[in-house]
Amino acid sequence: VTVGDLTEPELIARIARRLPPSPDWMPVGIGDDAAVVGPERNRLEALTVDALVEGVHFDRAFTPPEAIGHRALAVNLSDLAAMGAAPRLALLSLAMPPGWPVDEFDRMIGGFVALAARHRLHLAGGNLTRSPGPLVVNVTLTGTIKPRRVLRRVGAKAGDALFVTGSLGAATAGLQMLGDSPPPDDLAANPCIQRYLFPEPRVRCGLLLGRNRAATSCIDLSDGLADGVRRIAEANGIGIVVDGASLPVEPAAREWFERGGADALKSAVLGGDDYELLFTARPRALGRVTAVCRGGGPVTRIGVCTTERRVVLRADGSDWPIPPGYSHFR
Amino acid sequence: VTVGDLTEPELIARIARRLPPSPDWMPVGIGDDAAVVGPERNRLEALTVDALVEGVHFDRAFTPPEAIGHRALAVNLSDLAAMGAAPRLALLSLAMPPGWPVDEFDRMIGGFVALAARHRLHLAGGNLTRSPGPLVVNVTLTGTIKPRRVLRRVGAKAGDALFVTGSLGAATAGLQMLGDSPPPDDLAANPCIQRYLFPEPRVRCGLLLGRNRAATSCIDLSDGLADGVRRIAEANGIGIVVDGASLPVEPAAREWFERGGADALKSAVLGGDDYELLFTARPRALGRVTAVCRGGGPVTRIGVCTTERRVVLRADGSDWPIPPGYSHFR
Repeated sequence: VTVGDLTEPELIARIARRLPPSPDWMPVGIGDDAAVVGPERNRLEALTVDALVEGVHFDRAFTPPEAIGHRALAVNLSDLAAMGAAPRLALLSLAMPPGWPVDEFDRMIGGFVALAARHRLHLAGGNLTRSPGPLVVNVTLTGTIKPRRVLRRVGAKAGDALFVTGSLGAATAGLQMLGDSPPPDDLAANPCIQRYLFPEPRVRCGLLLGRNRAATSCIDLSDGLADGVRRIAEANGIGIVVDGASLPVEPAAREWFERGGADALKSAVLGGDDYELLFTARPRALGRVTAVCRGGGPVTRIGVCTTERRVVLRADGSDWPIPPGYSHFR
Repeated sequence: VTVGDLTEPELIARIARRLPPSPDWMPVGIGDDAAVVGPERNRLEALTVDALVEGVHFDRAFTPPEAIGHRALAVNLSDLAAMGAAPRLALLSLAMPPGWPVDEFDRMIGGFVALAARHRLHLAGGNLTRSPGPLVVNVTLTGTIKPRRVLRRVGAKAGDALFVTGSLGAATAGLQMLGDSPPPDDLAANPCIQRYLFPEPRVRCGLLLGRNRAATSCIDLSDGLADGVRRIAEANGIGIVVDGASLPVEPAAREWFERGGADALKSAVLGGDDYELLFTARPRALGRVTAVCRGGGPVTRIGVCTTERRVVLRADGSDWPIPPGYSHFR
């Protein structure tokens, strides 16, 4: 049975039955022309949208449907995290090849719903349509933020320290492993592959950074560290020196890159899909950054903002100009 | 020059320079990880998403780029209209074939921005990605509604009268004309083609219906009258008799259908893309419906809700069971 064998209401019913009851503040949920929600008092609203396109962001040949649903939501949660917002609701818009098996549709929805539940995010509505080409999963999220706790790209100054959450390079290594022939045996036990398929957006870390006002600027690393540092530098008219020795390259990824003859540091800097947060903080705010580490997971100081407008990786005593990172667009 | 020759920031800049300044209530607009907006006091928020997919919802061969942008927004405005909501902001997510000319990208954005300006709607953000297949235009809209003025699908009872705004059949006829070979000479002067390319969502009419509480249920006719009456009937556990003699079939469409040997009434009932509103009202509320007509455009009484759960078109003394309407999905 394929999605093309079912009607839109039948497919919507398959989604709706997996959802928890609508919260009080959502008088109209799935099934009307639009969802209707009540505002949260004394909060601003953050809104973001992102699409995963088959053949661009994932390959159905080696991406299980659960991971497609998980990642489509995770990339958006990561955007909210970078603003310091708490996730609130989602809209899911799917363009699907009619020959797509309903079983895979259900599994994709399962991956989406499971991650949503963990972040207490409600699916409020969406849209289903046919695609004559690739599967396109478009997710819109809203979140809430207290005023004056919004994390932005703008705000970093020369002298600020640069930080990154978690580790780098794992998703890139995982994607390379999945594309390898033959692929590794035990996908579920491989940390790099799991990281690529099921990234964990740093929602809690973003909330804590906004709450204790530790960060002067913040961005998520959907397109990798190279892209992130360039955007922070451009948005603030500064340069950035990344200290190679301090970069938290995932050990299994480092091993993978080096086994393939690649430079592990540069691979980790250029690779995308890690969905970590990159942020800056005044030197005197280091104590507050440490507090974030305690509550929101590991954070590593990886560099410094400079008046000289160069963006470089400093390793082994020499500076490597960081090129534009991975782009999903070009 | 094609969109694939430009970077994502360059394309975003081409959009941003066509936008009016951000309103006070939007502290963060285009260019950060997410947009941030302040709530409107004493209002609920309506949220909707809809996608136009090349090859499913439009054909680039005969749909000018301005019309693609206009329609992608109009279909969503129509959803807000059906809820009685005032449009507030939009997110635009595009999956684009890299070979798409930048000139057409600009014209599509122009069509989108022009309609947005007329409805005082702000583009708050979005996403640009590559598509290995069709152009996909995904639009998310939010709007505001006063509590207790939300129009819903549920609420109609047997005995309620059935109404439709504007006229029916024009968009279907227009689409057929565009696909004709050779296409008509003067596209801009043809009311059916203009209606297909540049539908005018009934935003004001929806607002007035919500404000004076004339309607017991409401839905927009994106998929045509047949689909709309069936959904209203199903949602409310009622039947509907549509009176064929009173249907406001667009005269130019009627002529087109009949010239082609088709039944004009049935063509207008089954055809989609008109983006009119279908609503029900208690018989004693007819005065309030008349008031909506004065302020929000023509409204025609076209039938009645019944306890007997059949959905039929009554014309020339016989009842025709209305089949499921046009579906963009199957």
